[in-house]
Amino acid sequence: MNKFELKDTAVSWVYEAATFIKDKMKQSIEVDTKSNKDDLVTDVDEGVEALFLEKLKETYPEHRLMGEEGSFESIKDLDGIVWILDPIDGTINFVHMESFFAISIGIFKDGKPLIGIVYDVMKDDLFVSVKGEGATLNGDQLLPHADRKLDEAIVSFNTGWLLKDRRLEEVVKHVRGTRSYGVAALEMAYVAAGKLDAYISYHLAPWDVAGGAALLDEVGGKMTNVKGEKLTFLEKDSLFAANPSIYDAIVDVSGITKD
Amino acid sequence: MNKFELKDTAVSWVYEAATFIKDKMKQSIEVDTKSNKDDLVTDVDEGVEALFLEKLKETYPEHRLMGEEGSFESIKDLDGIVWILDPIDGTINFVHMESFFAISIGIFKDGKPLIGIVYDVMKDDLFVSVKGEGATLNGDQLLPHADRKLDEAIVSFNTGWLLKDRRLEEVVKHVRGTRSYGVAALEMAYVAAGKLDAYISYHLAPWDVAGGAALLDEVGGKMTNVKGEKLTFLEKDSLFAANPSIYDAIVDVSGITKD
Repeated sequence: MNKFELKDTAVSWVYEAATFIKDKMKQSIEVDTKSNKDDLVTDVDEGVEALFLEKLKETYPEHRLMGEEGSFESIKDLDGIVWILDPIDGTINFVHMESFFAISIGIFKDGKPLIGIVYDVMKDDLFVSVKGEGATLNGDQLLPHADRKLDEAIVSFNTGWLLKDRRLEEVVKHVRGTRSYGVAALEMAYVAAGKLDAYISYHLAPWDVAGGAALLDEVGGKMTNVKGEKLTFLEKDSLFAANPSIYDAIVDVSGITKD
Repeated sequence: MNKFELKDTAVSWVYEAATFIKDKMKQSIEVDTKSNKDDLVTDVDEGVEALFLEKLKETYPEHRLMGEEGSFESIKDLDGIVWILDPIDGTINFVHMESFFAISIGIFKDGKPLIGIVYDVMKDDLFVSVKGEGATLNGDQLLPHADRKLDEAIVSFNTGWLLKDRRLEEVVKHVRGTRSYGVAALEMAYVAAGKLDAYISYHLAPWDVAGGAALLDEVGGKMTNVKGEKLTFLEKDSLFAANPSIYDAIVDVSGITKD
Protein backbone atom coordinates (compact mmCIF):
# COMPACT_ATOMS: atom_id res chain seq x y z
CA MET A 1 0.00 0.00 0.00
CA ASN A 2 1.38 3.33 -1.19
CA LYS A 3 0.83 6.24 1.24
CA PHE A 4 0.16 8.75 -1.56
CA GLU A 5 -2.45 6.49 -3.14
CA LEU A 6 -4.03 5.98 0.30
CA LYS A 7 -4.13 9.75 0.82
CA ASP A 8 -5.73 10.36 -2.61
CA THR A 9 -8.34 7.69 -1.95
CA ALA A 10 -9.18 9.09 1.49
CA VAL A 11 -9.47 12.63 0.12
CA SER A 12 -11.84 11.46 -2.65
CA TRP A 13 -14.06 9.78 -0.04
CA VAL A 14 -14.05 12.96 2.06
CA TYR A 15 -15.32 14.94 -0.93
CA GLU A 16 -17.99 12.29 -1.49
CA ALA A 17 -19.04 12.55 2.17
CA ALA A 18 -19.14 16.36 1.91
CA THR A 19 -21.53 16.16 -1.05
CA PHE A 20 -23.72 13.77 0.97
CA ILE A 21 -23.74 16.23 3.90
CA LYS A 22 -24.61 19.24 1.73
CA ASP A 23 -27.45 17.33 0.02
CA LYS A 24 -28.86 16.34 3.44
CA MET A 25 -28.63 19.97 4.61
CA LYS A 26 -30.52 21.19 1.56
CA GLN A 27 -33.32 18.66 2.13
CA SER A 28 -33.48 19.52 5.84
CA ILE A 29 -33.71 23.29 5.40
CA GLU A 30 -37.07 22.73 3.75
CA VAL A 31 -38.46 21.49 7.09
CA ASP A 32 -36.64 23.76 9.50
CA THR A 33 -37.59 22.72 13.05
CA LYS A 34 -35.40 21.88 16.01
CA SER A 35 -36.27 18.18 16.14
CA ASN A 36 -35.62 18.04 12.43
CA LYS A 37 -32.17 19.53 13.01
CA ASP A 38 -31.35 16.93 15.67
CA ASP A 39 -32.45 14.20 13.28
CA LEU A 40 -30.22 15.77 10.63
CA VAL A 41 -27.13 15.46 12.85
CA THR A 42 -27.82 11.81 13.57
CA ASP A 43 -28.62 11.11 9.92
CA VAL A 44 -25.48 12.77 8.66
CA ASP A 45 -23.15 11.36 11.32
CA GLU A 46 -24.40 7.83 10.73
CA GLY A 47 -24.54 8.24 6.96
CA VAL A 48 -20.94 9.42 6.68
CA GLU A 49 -19.67 6.70 8.99
CA ALA A 50 -21.58 4.06 7.00
CA LEU A 51 -20.09 5.44 3.78
CA PHE A 52 -16.54 5.02 5.13
CA LEU A 53 -17.27 1.56 6.57
CA GLU A 54 -18.56 0.38 3.21
CA LYS A 55 -15.67 1.91 1.23
CA LEU A 56 -13.09 0.36 3.58
CA LYS A 57 -14.72 -3.07 3.34
CA GLU A 58 -14.48 -2.89 -0.46
CA THR A 59 -11.06 -1.29 -0.83
CA TYR A 60 -9.00 -1.93 2.31
CA PRO A 61 -10.77 -4.81 4.14
CA GLU A 62 -7.82 -5.18 6.53
CA HIS A 63 -8.12 -1.57 7.80
CA ARG A 64 -10.25 -0.85 10.87
CA LEU A 65 -12.47 2.18 11.55
CA MET A 66 -12.83 4.03 14.85
CA GLY A 67 -15.77 6.38 14.31
CA GLU A 68 -17.91 8.45 16.63
CA GLU A 69 -21.07 6.56 15.70
CA GLY A 70 -20.65 3.15 17.27
CA SER A 71 -17.67 1.67 15.48
CA PHE A 72 -15.32 2.95 18.21
CA GLU A 73 -16.67 0.41 20.67
CA SER A 74 -14.80 -2.48 19.09
CA ILE A 75 -11.43 -0.67 18.94
CA LYS A 76 -9.25 -1.42 21.99
CA ASP A 77 -5.82 -0.91 20.39
CA LEU A 78 -4.26 0.83 17.38
CA ASP A 79 -2.41 -2.16 15.88
CA GLY A 80 -2.18 -2.17 12.09
CA ILE A 81 -4.04 0.52 10.18
CA VAL A 82 -6.91 2.33 11.92
CA TRP A 83 -8.94 5.16 10.43
CA ILE A 84 -10.05 7.49 13.24
CA LEU A 85 -13.06 9.39 11.89
CA ASP A 86 -15.25 12.24 13.03
CA PRO A 87 -18.05 12.49 10.44
CA ILE A 88 -18.93 16.02 11.66
CA ASP A 89 -16.68 17.78 14.10
CA GLY A 90 -18.43 20.90 15.40
CA THR A 91 -21.96 19.48 15.68
CA ILE A 92 -23.39 22.56 17.43
CA ASN A 93 -22.00 24.81 14.69
CA PHE A 94 -23.45 22.46 12.08
CA VAL A 95 -26.94 22.78 13.57
CA HIS A 96 -26.80 26.42 14.64
CA MET A 97 -24.54 28.08 12.07
CA GLU A 98 -24.70 25.73 9.06
CA SER A 99 -20.97 26.37 8.79
CA PHE A 100 -17.74 25.99 10.84
CA PHE A 101 -17.86 22.18 10.89
CA ALA A 102 -15.37 19.67 9.51
CA ILE A 103 -14.87 16.08 8.47
CA SER A 104 -11.79 14.85 10.33
CA ILE A 105 -9.75 11.71 9.63
CA GLY A 106 -6.51 10.47 11.10
CA ILE A 107 -5.19 7.29 9.47
CA PHE A 108 -2.89 5.73 12.06
CA LYS A 109 -0.36 2.93 11.51
CA ASP A 110 0.59 0.99 14.64
CA GLY A 111 -0.49 3.91 16.82
CA LYS A 112 1.27 6.66 14.86
CA PRO A 113 -0.25 9.18 12.43
CA LEU A 114 0.29 8.28 8.78
CA ILE A 115 -2.24 10.57 7.09
CA GLY A 116 -4.33 13.47 8.37
CA ILE A 117 -7.30 15.13 6.67
CA VAL A 118 -9.42 17.98 8.04
CA TYR A 119 -11.99 19.40 5.64
CA ASP A 120 -14.02 22.55 6.32
CA VAL A 121 -17.04 21.55 4.26
CA MET A 122 -18.68 24.99 3.79
CA LYS A 123 -15.48 27.02 3.37
CA ASP A 124 -13.95 24.31 1.12
CA ASP A 125 -10.64 24.42 3.06
CA LEU A 126 -8.76 21.12 2.82
CA PHE A 127 -5.89 20.39 5.20
CA VAL A 128 -3.91 17.21 4.38
CA SER A 129 -0.75 15.61 5.73
CA VAL A 130 1.27 12.56 4.76
CA LYS A 131 3.91 11.16 7.16
CA GLY A 132 7.33 12.52 6.20
CA GLU A 133 5.92 14.73 3.44
CA GLY A 134 4.63 17.70 5.46
CA ALA A 135 1.16 19.17 5.40
CA THR A 136 -0.81 21.34 2.98
CA LEU A 137 -3.76 23.72 2.99
CA ASN A 138 -5.59 23.67 -0.35
CA GLY A 139 -2.41 22.34 -1.95
CA ASP A 140 -0.06 24.98 -0.50
CA GLN A 141 2.71 23.58 1.70
CA LEU A 142 2.45 24.63 5.38
CA LEU A 143 5.66 25.97 6.93
CA PRO A 144 7.36 24.20 9.86
CA HIS A 145 6.63 25.99 13.15
CA ALA A 146 9.14 28.78 13.82
CA ASP A 147 9.61 30.45 17.22
CA ARG A 148 7.01 33.02 18.18
CA LYS A 149 6.59 35.41 21.12
CA LEU A 150 3.64 34.92 23.47
CA ASP A 151 2.55 38.56 23.21
CA GLU A 152 2.18 38.07 19.46
CA ALA A 153 0.27 34.79 19.77
CA ILE A 154 -3.40 34.03 19.16
CA VAL A 155 -4.70 31.21 21.34
CA SER A 156 -7.99 29.38 21.08
CA PHE A 157 -10.03 27.77 23.84
CA ASN A 158 -13.64 27.80 24.92
CA THR A 159 -14.38 30.54 27.46
CA GLY A 160 -16.18 27.96 29.59
CA TRP A 161 -12.85 26.26 30.41
CA LEU A 162 -11.69 29.45 32.09
CA LEU A 163 -14.37 28.93 34.74
CA LYS A 164 -12.99 25.43 35.40
CA ASP A 165 -9.27 26.24 35.32
CA ARG A 166 -8.52 29.81 36.44
CA ARG A 167 -4.87 29.43 35.38
CA LEU A 168 -6.10 30.15 31.85
CA GLU A 169 -6.62 33.78 32.95
CA GLU A 170 -2.84 34.17 32.83
CA VAL A 171 -2.89 32.99 29.24
CA VAL A 172 -5.54 35.58 28.37
CA LYS A 173 -3.44 38.34 29.96
CA HIS A 174 -0.24 37.47 28.11
CA VAL A 175 -1.35 36.74 24.54
CA ARG A 176 -2.22 39.06 21.68
CA GLY A 177 -5.70 37.63 21.36
CA THR A 178 -7.97 34.71 22.14
CA ARG A 179 -10.46 33.03 19.86
CA SER A 180 -13.00 30.21 20.04
CA TYR A 181 -14.60 28.42 17.08
CA GLY A 182 -16.23 25.37 18.68
CA VAL A 183 -14.65 22.90 16.26
CA ALA A 184 -11.56 21.12 17.61
CA ALA A 185 -10.40 19.55 14.34
CA LEU A 186 -10.35 22.92 12.55
CA GLU A 187 -8.75 24.69 15.52
CA MET A 188 -5.94 22.09 15.48
CA ALA A 189 -5.61 22.54 11.71
CA TYR A 190 -5.34 26.31 12.26
CA VAL A 191 -2.54 25.69 14.78
CA ALA A 192 -0.79 23.47 12.21
CA ALA A 193 -1.11 26.28 9.65
CA GLY A 194 0.15 28.99 12.06
CA LYS A 195 -3.22 30.80 11.93
CA LEU A 196 -3.56 30.06 15.64
CA ASP A 197 -0.57 29.43 17.92
CA ALA A 198 -2.24 27.18 20.50
CA TYR A 199 -5.49 25.33 21.11
CA ILE A 200 -6.56 24.04 24.53
CA SER A 201 -9.53 21.86 25.48
CA TYR A 202 -10.33 19.86 28.62
CA HIS A 203 -12.50 17.18 27.03
CA LEU A 204 -12.15 15.63 23.58
CA ALA A 205 -12.54 12.20 22.01
CA PRO A 206 -9.86 10.50 19.84
CA TRP A 207 -11.91 11.24 16.69
CA ASP A 208 -11.93 14.97 17.52
CA VAL A 209 -8.12 15.13 17.55
CA ALA A 210 -6.68 12.34 15.35
CA GLY A 211 -6.78 14.24 12.04
CA GLY A 212 -5.41 17.44 13.56
CA ALA A 213 -2.70 15.50 15.40
CA ALA A 214 -1.44 14.07 12.11
CA LEU A 215 -1.28 17.57 10.60
CA LEU A 216 0.53 18.99 13.64
CA ASP A 217 3.12 16.21 13.61
CA GLU A 218 4.16 17.17 10.10
CA VAL A 219 4.87 20.83 10.93
CA GLY A 220 6.65 20.15 14.24
CA GLY A 221 3.78 21.22 16.50
CA LYS A 222 3.77 20.10 20.13
CA MET A 223 0.79 18.27 21.56
CA THR A 224 -0.03 16.59 24.86
CA ASN A 225 -2.98 16.47 27.22
CA VAL A 226 -3.29 19.41 29.65
CA LYS A 227 -1.20 17.47 32.20
CA GLY A 228 1.68 17.36 29.72
CA GLU A 229 1.21 13.65 29.06
CA LYS A 230 1.28 11.85 25.72
CA LEU A 231 -2.08 11.29 23.99
CA THR A 232 -3.19 7.67 23.57
CA PHE A 233 -5.90 8.21 20.92
CA LEU A 234 -7.85 5.43 22.64
CA GLU A 235 -9.84 7.35 25.23
CA LYS A 236 -11.29 10.78 25.94
CA ASP A 237 -8.71 13.23 27.21
CA SER A 238 -7.80 16.91 27.41
CA LEU A 239 -5.64 18.54 24.73
CA PHE A 240 -2.94 21.19 24.59
CA ALA A 241 -1.70 21.62 21.00
CA ALA A 242 0.65 24.45 20.08
CA ASN A 243 3.59 25.91 18.30
CA PRO A 244 6.40 24.52 20.53
CA SER A 245 7.70 27.96 21.61
CA ILE A 246 4.18 29.05 22.55
CA TYR A 247 3.53 25.74 24.34
CA ASP A 248 6.51 26.42 26.61
CA ALA A 249 5.63 30.09 27.10
CA ILE A 250 2.05 29.20 28.11
CA VAL A 251 3.34 26.67 30.65
CA ASP A 252 5.69 29.37 32.03
CA VAL A 253 3.03 32.05 32.56
CA SER A 254 0.10 29.84 33.60
CA GLY A 255 1.54 26.69 35.12
CA ILE A 256 -0.97 24.52 33.27
CA THR A 257 0.48 20.98 32.86
CA LYS A 258 1.80 21.38 36.45
CA ASP A 259 -0.80 19.94 38.79
CA MET B 1 -31.33 58.65 -5.49
CA ASN B 2 -32.80 55.16 -5.57
CA LYS B 3 -31.87 52.95 -2.56
CA PHE B 4 -31.54 49.81 -4.69
CA GLU B 5 -29.21 51.54 -7.14
CA LEU B 6 -27.18 52.87 -4.21
CA LYS B 7 -26.92 49.36 -2.76
CA ASP B 8 -25.83 47.87 -6.10
CA THR B 9 -23.20 50.56 -6.53
CA ALA B 10 -21.86 50.08 -3.00
CA VAL B 11 -21.68 46.30 -3.45
CA SER B 12 -19.77 46.67 -6.72
CA TRP B 13 -17.22 48.93 -4.98
CA VAL B 14 -16.88 46.40 -2.15
CA TYR B 15 -16.01 43.69 -4.68
CA GLU B 16 -13.49 46.06 -6.28
CA ALA B 17 -11.93 46.73 -2.85
CA ALA B 18 -11.79 42.98 -2.14
CA THR B 19 -9.86 42.37 -5.36
CA PHE B 20 -7.44 45.15 -4.36
CA ILE B 21 -6.96 43.53 -0.93
CA LYS B 22 -6.34 40.05 -2.34
CA ASP B 23 -3.82 41.40 -4.86
CA LYS B 24 -1.95 43.21 -2.06
CA MET B 25 -1.95 40.00 0.04
CA LYS B 26 -0.49 38.01 -2.85
CA GLN B 27 2.33 40.55 -3.34
CA SER B 28 3.01 40.67 0.40
CA ILE B 29 3.25 36.92 0.92
CA GLU B 30 6.33 36.98 -1.29
CA VAL B 31 8.15 39.03 1.38
CA ASP B 32 6.73 37.48 4.53
CA THR B 33 8.15 39.39 7.52
CA LYS B 34 6.38 41.00 10.46
CA SER B 35 7.18 44.60 9.51
CA ASN B 36 6.02 43.78 6.02
CA LYS B 37 2.72 42.55 7.44
CA ASP B 38 2.23 45.77 9.42
CA ASP B 39 2.95 47.76 6.27
CA LEU B 40 0.39 45.61 4.47
CA VAL B 41 -2.36 46.52 6.94
CA THR B 42 -1.64 50.24 6.60
CA ASP B 43 -1.39 49.96 2.81
CA VAL B 44 -4.64 48.08 2.48
CA ASP B 45 -6.60 50.18 4.99
CA GLU B 46 -5.51 53.41 3.33
CA GLY B 47 -5.90 52.02 -0.19
CA VAL B 48 -9.48 50.87 0.38
CA GLU B 49 -10.47 54.14 2.06
CA ALA B 50 -8.91 56.14 -0.81
CA LEU B 51 -10.82 54.01 -3.31
CA PHE B 52 -14.14 54.83 -1.62
CA LEU B 53 -13.29 58.53 -1.25
CA GLU B 54 -12.50 58.78 -4.96
CA LYS B 55 -15.61 56.84 -6.02
CA LEU B 56 -17.86 58.99 -3.81
CA LYS B 57 -16.34 62.20 -5.15
CA GLU B 58 -17.13 61.05 -8.71
CA THR B 59 -20.53 59.47 -8.15
CA TYR B 60 -22.13 60.94 -5.03
CA PRO B 61 -20.19 64.16 -4.28
CA GLU B 62 -22.79 65.21 -1.67
CA HIS B 63 -22.22 62.04 0.43
CA ARG B 64 -19.65 62.09 3.24
CA LEU B 65 -17.31 59.29 4.36
CA MET B 66 -16.44 58.36 7.94
CA GLY B 67 -13.58 55.90 7.62
CA GLU B 68 -11.07 54.45 10.06
CA GLU B 69 -8.12 55.97 8.22
CA GLY B 70 -8.37 59.69 8.88
CA SER B 71 -11.61 60.69 7.21
CA PHE B 72 -13.53 60.21 10.49
CA GLU B 73 -11.89 63.30 11.98
CA SER B 74 -14.02 65.71 10.00
CA ILE B 75 -17.35 63.98 10.83
CA LYS B 76 -19.08 65.53 13.84
CA ASP B 77 -22.69 64.69 12.95
CA LEU B 78 -24.63 62.26 10.75
CA ASP B 79 -26.73 64.79 8.82
CA GLY B 80 -27.51 63.83 5.23
CA ILE B 81 -25.88 60.70 3.84
CA VAL B 82 -22.76 59.35 5.54
CA TRP B 83 -20.89 56.20 4.56
CA ILE B 84 -19.35 54.65 7.69
CA LEU B 85 -16.54 52.41 6.45
CA ASP B 86 -14.15 49.90 7.99
CA PRO B 87 -11.76 48.94 5.17
CA ILE B 88 -10.64 45.83 7.12
CA ASP B 89 -12.48 44.81 10.23
CA GLY B 90 -10.49 42.10 12.02
CA THR B 91 -7.00 43.47 11.43
CA ILE B 92 -5.28 40.93 13.69
CA ASN B 93 -7.00 38.07 11.86
CA PHE B 94 -5.98 39.64 8.54
CA VAL B 95 -2.31 39.65 9.56
CA HIS B 96 -2.23 36.41 11.53
CA MET B 97 -4.79 34.18 9.82
CA GLU B 98 -5.10 35.67 6.33
CA SER B 99 -8.84 35.04 6.76
CA PHE B 100 -11.75 36.01 9.07
CA PHE B 101 -11.69 39.71 8.13
CA ALA B 102 -14.40 41.82 6.51
CA ILE B 103 -15.10 45.03 4.67
CA SER B 104 -17.91 46.76 6.57
CA ILE B 105 -20.08 49.65 5.38
CA GLY B 106 -23.12 51.29 6.92
CA ILE B 107 -24.71 53.94 4.75
CA PHE B 108 -26.66 56.18 7.11
CA LYS B 109 -29.29 58.78 6.23
CA ASP B 110 -29.82 61.49 8.87
CA GLY B 111 -28.38 59.19 11.54
CA LYS B 112 -30.36 56.09 10.62
CA PRO B 113 -29.15 52.99 8.74
CA LEU B 114 -30.21 52.92 5.08
CA ILE B 115 -27.90 50.23 3.71
CA GLY B 116 -25.58 47.71 5.39
CA ILE B 117 -22.86 45.61 3.78
CA VAL B 118 -20.53 43.18 5.52
CA TYR B 119 -18.29 41.15 3.21
CA ASP B 120 -16.12 38.25 4.41
CA VAL B 121 -13.44 38.61 1.74
CA MET B 122 -11.82 35.14 1.94
CA LYS B 123 -15.02 33.13 2.51
CA ASP B 124 -16.90 35.18 -0.10
CA ASP B 125 -19.89 35.65 2.23
CA LEU B 126 -21.85 38.81 1.43
CA PHE B 127 -24.38 40.18 3.94
CA VAL B 128 -26.50 43.08 2.60
CA SER B 129 -29.47 45.03 3.94
CA VAL B 130 -31.67 47.78 2.51
CA LYS B 131 -33.97 49.78 4.81
CA GLY B 132 -37.46 48.30 4.74
CA GLU B 133 -36.41 45.42 2.46
CA GLY B 134 -34.79 43.05 4.97
CA ALA B 135 -31.33 41.54 4.81
CA THR B 136 -29.71 38.80 2.75
CA LEU B 137 -26.72 36.44 2.96
CA ASN B 138 -25.39 35.58 -0.50
CA GLY B 139 -28.79 36.52 -1.91
CA ASP B 140 -30.85 34.39 0.49
CA GLN B 141 -33.30 36.36 2.63
CA LEU B 142 -32.52 36.30 6.38
CA LEU B 143 -35.44 35.46 8.65
CA PRO B 144 -36.75 37.94 11.25
CA HIS B 145 -35.54 37.06 14.75
CA ALA B 146 -37.86 34.58 16.46
CA ASP B 147 -37.81 33.86 20.21
CA ARG B 148 -35.05 31.57 21.42
CA LYS B 149 -34.18 30.03 24.78
CA LEU B 150 -30.95 31.05 26.48
CA ASP B 151 -29.83 27.45 27.02
CA GLU B 152 -30.02 26.93 23.26
CA ALA B 153 -28.13 30.15 22.44
CA ILE B 154 -24.61 30.66 21.14
CA VAL B 155 -23.06 33.92 22.31
CA SER B 156 -19.88 35.56 21.12
CA PHE B 157 -17.50 37.79 23.07
CA ASN B 158 -13.78 37.97 23.58
CA THR B 159 -12.64 35.97 26.62
CA GLY B 160 -10.60 38.99 27.73
CA TRP B 161 -13.81 40.90 28.55
CA LEU B 162 -14.67 38.27 31.15
CA LEU B 163 -11.65 39.41 33.17
CA LYS B 164 -12.98 42.98 33.08
CA ASP B 165 -16.67 42.25 33.75
CA ARG B 166 -17.19 39.11 35.84
CA ARG B 167 -20.94 39.28 35.26
CA LEU B 168 -20.21 37.65 31.89
CA GLU B 169 -19.49 34.41 33.80
CA GLU B 170 -23.24 34.08 34.33
CA VAL B 171 -23.71 34.29 30.57
CA VAL B 172 -21.16 31.50 30.04
CA LYS B 173 -22.95 29.30 32.57
CA HIS B 174 -26.41 29.71 31.02
CA VAL B 175 -25.82 29.47 27.28
CA ARG B 176 -25.34 26.47 25.02
CA GLY B 177 -21.96 27.71 23.86
CA THR B 178 -19.64 30.69 23.51
CA ARG B 179 -17.53 31.68 20.54
CA SER B 180 -15.05 34.40 19.63
CA TYR B 181 -13.93 35.33 16.12
CA GLY B 182 -12.13 38.66 16.62
CA VAL B 183 -14.08 40.45 13.90
CA ALA B 184 -16.99 42.57 15.17
CA ALA B 185 -18.62 43.27 11.80
CA LEU B 186 -18.87 39.56 10.98
CA GLU B 187 -20.01 38.65 14.48
CA MET B 188 -22.84 41.19 14.17
CA ALA B 189 -23.68 39.79 10.75
CA TYR B 190 -23.80 36.30 12.28
CA VAL B 191 -26.23 37.61 14.93
CA ALA B 192 -28.36 39.11 12.14
CA ALA B 193 -28.35 35.73 10.38
CA GLY B 194 -29.20 33.77 13.55
CA LYS B 195 -25.86 31.92 13.42
CA LEU B 196 -25.03 33.60 16.73
CA ASP B 197 -27.67 34.84 19.18
CA ALA B 198 -25.69 37.66 20.81
CA TYR B 199 -22.42 39.53 20.46
CA ILE B 200 -20.89 41.64 23.24
CA SER B 201 -17.87 43.94 23.16
CA TYR B 202 -16.67 46.67 25.53
CA HIS B 203 -14.80 48.80 23.01
CA LEU B 204 -15.66 49.41 19.38
CA ALA B 205 -15.58 52.31 16.93
CA PRO B 206 -18.56 53.45 14.80
CA TRP B 207 -16.97 51.88 11.68
CA ASP B 208 -16.77 48.48 13.44
CA VAL B 209 -20.52 48.42 14.06
CA ALA B 210 -22.31 50.57 11.44
CA GLY B 211 -22.63 47.87 8.75
CA GLY B 212 -23.72 45.20 11.23
CA ALA B 213 -26.18 47.61 12.87
CA ALA B 214 -27.91 48.16 9.53
CA LEU B 215 -28.23 44.39 9.01
CA LEU B 216 -29.55 43.84 12.54
CA ASP B 217 -32.17 46.57 12.17
CA GLU B 218 -33.68 44.74 9.21
CA VAL B 219 -34.21 41.44 11.05
CA GLY B 220 -35.51 42.99 14.28
CA GLY B 221 -32.32 42.49 16.31
CA LYS B 222 -31.82 44.50 19.51
CA MET B 223 -28.71 46.59 19.95
CA THR B 224 -27.47 49.05 22.57
CA ASN B 225 -24.21 49.71 24.36
CA VAL B 226 -23.51 47.50 27.39
CA LYS B 227 -25.24 50.07 29.64
CA GLY B 228 -28.45 49.58 27.64
CA GLU B 229 -28.16 53.00 25.99
CA LYS B 230 -28.73 53.88 22.35
CA LEU B 231 -25.67 53.91 20.08
CA THR B 232 -24.70 57.28 18.58
CA PHE B 233 -22.38 56.01 15.80
CA LEU B 234 -20.25 59.12 16.46
CA GLU B 235 -17.86 57.88 19.13
CA LYS B 236 -16.27 54.73 20.50
CA ASP B 237 -18.60 52.74 22.72
CA SER B 238 -19.40 49.25 23.97
CA LEU B 239 -21.89 47.02 22.13
CA PHE B 240 -24.54 44.48 23.08
CA ALA B 241 -26.27 43.14 19.94
CA ALA B 242 -28.66 40.23 20.13
CA ASN B 243 -31.79 38.40 19.21
CA PRO B 244 -34.29 40.37 21.38
CA SER B 245 -35.36 37.36 23.49
CA ILE B 246 -31.72 36.49 24.16
CA TYR B 247 -30.89 40.14 24.94
CA ASP B 248 -33.49 40.13 27.70
CA ALA B 249 -32.48 36.69 28.99
CA ILE B 250 -28.82 37.75 29.22
CA VAL B 251 -29.79 40.87 31.18
CA ASP B 252 -31.87 38.67 33.52
CA VAL B 253 -29.11 36.17 34.35
CA SER B 254 -26.09 38.50 34.36
CA GLY B 255 -27.36 41.97 35.18
CA ILE B 256 -25.19 43.55 32.51
CA THR B 257 -26.75 46.87 31.43
CA LYS B 258 -27.55 47.44 35.13
CA ASP B 259 -24.69 49.42 36.61
